[in-house]
Amino acid sequence: MKLYTYFRSSAAYRVRIALNLKGLSYEAVPVHLVRGEQRQSDYCKLNPAGLVPTLEVDGQALTQSLAIIEYLEETQGGPALLPADALGRARVRALAQAIACDTHPLNNLRVLQYLGQSLGVDEAQRTAWYHHWVQLGLGAMERMLADDPRTGAFCHGDQPTLADCCLVPQVFNARRFGCSLDAMPTVQRIAAHCEQLEAFRRAAPEQQPDAAA
Amino acid sequence: MKLYTYFRSSAAYRVRIALNLKGLSYEAVPVHLVRGEQRQSDYCKLNPAGLVPTLEVDGQALTQSLAIIEYLEETQGGPALLPADALGRARVRALAQAIACDTHPLNNLRVLQYLGQSLGVDEAQRTAWYHHWVQLGLGAMERMLADDPRTGAFCHGDQPTLADCCLVPQVFNARRFGCSLDAMPTVQRIAAHCEQLEAFRRAAPEQQPDAAA
Repeated sequence: MKLYTYFRSSAAYRVRIALNLKGLSYEAVPVHLVRGEQRQSDYCKLNPAGLVPTLEVDGQALTQSLAIIEYLEETQGGPALLPADALGRARVRALAQAIACDTHPLNNLRVLQYLGQSLGVDEAQRTAWYHHWVQLGLGAMERMLADDPRTGAFCHGDQPTLADCCLVPQVFNARRFGCSLDAMPTVQRIAAHCEQLEAFRRAAPEQQPDAAA
Repeated sequence: MKLYTYFRSSAAYRVRIALNLKGLSYEAVPVHLVRGEQRQSDYCKLNPAGLVPTLEVDGQALTQSLAIIEYLEETQGGPALLPADALGRARVRALAQAIACDTHPLNNLRVLQYLGQSLGVDEAQRTAWYHHWVQLGLGAMERMLADDPRTGAFCHGDQPTLADCCLVPQVFNARRFGCSLDAMPTVQRIAAHCEQLEAFRRAAPEQQPDAAA
């Protein structure tokens, strides 16, 4: 398996966590987003959207972090990242999508670049934008987690799931951009619990081979 | 089943299509997004993110359109909305997420409101923003569809899937905001094919009970 990744990409970070949790080894191929390597034609043949991650596996180039993790779940061994019951799976997917659809897309690199370069939004306003969507997105996560008895040591029960694969990279981003998490004790507790696991630690941006470049 | 919906919500529109394709009847409960009904406390008990749709089913309030559709796929009868093979499912989910994670989140109502009200972005620039992300998102869809032999009359083969449930509402939005789809013949062809089906037609915004209000 070959994972096209960028150390700070939240979506790639999710897949790195999932691969580690399942005990799957992979070759990391760095794609430098700030230098625009994701827009080079060879890479776009693999990933027509010009985004990371891409996972080469079983003769195919798979795109979209959540679709990749579902594929790993369906085809690979290792611990399950989705619950056994349909209602539990619906909850875990909804938690994952609260990050992947409602929060992260508004704050990734290409959006911040468009705000600055095309709309002339200054740095203070870009930071306010970032904090606004994190507060909304992780604030919703906090309520979904705190008010539901199915929340355990992790987002859903006492084993890590797809939801934790999404939560931890978003919390990493929130900290990096100085967002307050004071109103989100459950989010903080679960992220801290995840970060005790080797699978999450090894997936962290600062542990990636391309982090130094 | 009770679907909390708004006629123009792209995410609710996806779920309406899926319910219709599966032949499931439901009670539609309108939540008026422009009037802010999604932020009322009773609704937020069901959907802590304050977004539509929410589906009440099997004693639970399910959120997030893609998670809801996966739940229907796992628990209800009717035509399958995901392929039988894991690689096919990965492709359909990736196509759906190219809309639901990379395109739609940037152009929904709350984002356009923040651009105008908090950043003072004028209408012409908001329209340019809208067109920019549609061009990128549906442009990527076009390449993912046009360059893959698995594309058929629909996004994946000759039966509608989760990918078509996402594509048609995004095409509806693109038309509504005057985005050119000239460079996307495959997207246009598939959307037109979908729109011949009763299940898609009945789910369209203008067919909803709250469209007139």
